[in-house]
Amino acid sequence: MEAGINFFPDVHHRDKAADRYFAECLELVELADGLGYHHIRIVEHYFHQYGGYSPNPIVFLAAAAARSRNLRLITGAVLPAFNHPLKLAGEIGMLDAISGGRLEVGFARAFLPHEFQRFGVDMDTSRARFDEGVDAVRRLLTEEDAAFDGRFHSFPSTTSLPRPTQRPHPPLWVAALSSEQSFRRAGELGCGVMANPLAADTLRTYLEIYRTAWQAAGHPGRGRVMLAFHMHCAPDRRTAEARAEEPVNAYLRSLAAAASDWTSGASSADYPGYRQMIEKLAADDFHSVRARSAALVGTPDDVVDRLWEVHDRCGGFEVASLQVNFSTLDPVLAAESVALFGERALPRLRAERGPGPRAA
Amino acid sequence: MEAGINFFPDVHHRDKAADRYFAECLELVELADGLGYHHIRIVEHYFHQYGGYSPNPIVFLAAAAARSRNLRLITGAVLPAFNHPLKLAGEIGMLDAISGGRLEVGFARAFLPHEFQRFGVDMDTSRARFDEGVDAVRRLLTEEDAAFDGRFHSFPSTTSLPRPTQRPHPPLWVAALSSEQSFRRAGELGCGVMANPLAADTLRTYLEIYRTAWQAAGHPGRGRVMLAFHMHCAPDRRTAEARAEEPVNAYLRSLAAAASDWTSGASSADYPGYRQMIEKLAADDFHSVRARSAALVGTPDDVVDRLWEVHDRCGGFEVASLQVNFSTLDPVLAAESVALFGERALPRLRAERGPGPRAA
Repeated sequence: MEAGINFFPDVHHRDKAADRYFAECLELVELADGLGYHHIRIVEHYFHQYGGYSPNPIVFLAAAAARSRNLRLITGAVLPAFNHPLKLAGEIGMLDAISGGRLEVGFARAFLPHEFQRFGVDMDTSRARFDEGVDAVRRLLTEEDAAFDGRFHSFPSTTSLPRPTQRPHPPLWVAALSSEQSFRRAGELGCGVMANPLAADTLRTYLEIYRTAWQAAGHPGRGRVMLAFHMHCAPDRRTAEARAEEPVNAYLRSLAAAASDWTSGASSADYPGYRQMIEKLAADDFHSVRARSAALVGTPDDVVDRLWEVHDRCGGFEVASLQVNFSTLDPVLAAESVALFGERALPRLRAERGPGPRAA
Repeated sequence: MEAGINFFPDVHHRDKAADRYFAECLELVELADGLGYHHIRIVEHYFHQYGGYSPNPIVFLAAAAARSRNLRLITGAVLPAFNHPLKLAGEIGMLDAISGGRLEVGFARAFLPHEFQRFGVDMDTSRARFDEGVDAVRRLLTEEDAAFDGRFHSFPSTTSLPRPTQRPHPPLWVAALSSEQSFRRAGELGCGVMANPLAADTLRTYLEIYRTAWQAAGHPGRGRVMLAFHMHCAPDRRTAEARAEEPVNAYLRSLAAAASDWTSGASSADYPGYRQMIEKLAADDFHSVRARSAALVGTPDDVVDRLWEVHDRCGGFEVASLQVNFSTLDPVLAAESVALFGERALPRLRAERGPGPRAA
């Protein structure tokens, strides 16, 4: 199993200015690069404490590329709904070049009504925009002289520049939250799937759907699964818990606030069951997310044990993406946790199992 | 006078892969930062050898910010015609933060028909899109809870994030090529003006229009003028000439090719006189651009003398932006030229005159 770092800014601009936030992140990038972490990853969100410091993940990842040598740089994710495919393909080519071929591109549908509203994009077109956007970007990356005639974007014969450094293009990922259709689609597309720790049985079912679709579409191997976790470790469990509890709760409150449109009237045929899902998320706290292993808090060994437990219960996953500097957590403690996990946990994660899943 | 570096990629993707191109640029960034250059700058262009490696200048500048400490980072320029203002304002906030407040934002109208065609944007809306885009982005940077109702883009009350590190926003520039209206507009807006060395009398006239408009609009001071040059220096003049001639010519050929739509039928009421201007540019060569000081080639002292000559003839300008690694020029020679100019020319440029223009 590989482990990397997921930067998900959830700080309010009156609490922490963005220059300080990004300076802290870039210190963690250097630290993580030296310790052998697999990747860094950052979201695309807008206009709200929840993620809004990162309206273009590619901008931060370009700075991170210049501060690192080995880390993979993962968009987690870019949103075709709010980006022109010609622009997005060009930025992907630039970052793949600037990083010397270390980019991986995650795509997502977006799910926050306030973002759709401000961009003037109908949420009921979300899935269609996603499918078309991924298709258009992939064609622009793969082919020269690509023409495209879509419902939302069309262009005559075009060679996107720069051509990608990785051929035919950087590895692609698709974010899947809680619908069978999303997991199936990721498999059909031959993309890795970025998911969250759901109840173990549910996750296992969805990952089986993903892998079945992957194989049915004729892609080699069994696909690639990334799961996202909050993570905080310290030399002893009590200390880790005491440090992480309130920052995890603050993160959960900012997610609930950003998604509150869902529980106050938003609805879309493209998002069946979202209101109920957001209601459940809004009821989460430190204890409930820990109970389902969405937050991993304890000693490095505690965290590794829990990661393998999730791994075995869901049928295996390849990459853990760890949120380490969430919300109000003291950046010094976040750096200590990243260092400790790098020194104590990463070697265990690498050494203990071969590639692929272990029978549960 | 301050001098910085303008990266204008004009390499074909079959001649030089983008990872190599950007690695060379980032080496020059470190070199320039250590030598006290004022800025680095990069364009937004698409789909063609002429500029197409840089479809989003903010992506490269983010990497450059991470490789430098003091350089100003200037978009030269971003194009409102092809960018959503919500996206652009967010990226500006990110880069201003990542660079610790070193960003300056240049806007331009775009002028290449093949770019408008592929984005499906009518060239006759160019000026209106530019005006609206600059207005929308400036409001998003300056105000929280900004609502906007435009011809091309509208959004309800929105707080763009991250809020800019520089308050109320990074310094703004407007590119002006060859119309009185563009220079006047830059002055009215209170933005710096990015221009090219035109015939001396013409440039003096336009800059007077700019400064008059600046003062009439009640802005303090006299504005800020940046001129762009090709520059190559070597310890002796003959060597500099021998090295620069063919790369300058190659650059001019790629400009002519990218703009060839203008001489084969494109026309737009938003671009009066463009066909004739492009025809003139297409007839340029090393000798003609040198004659009008658009290319500065010689010893460091030659280049400084010529910069002051342009300065005095046009009524003064504040910033020289130097294209140093153009087209086929050997990157080792480009680095030598940047080092030599930094050591020999920058101290003279800084020491010889006070701020402001000298009477011609």
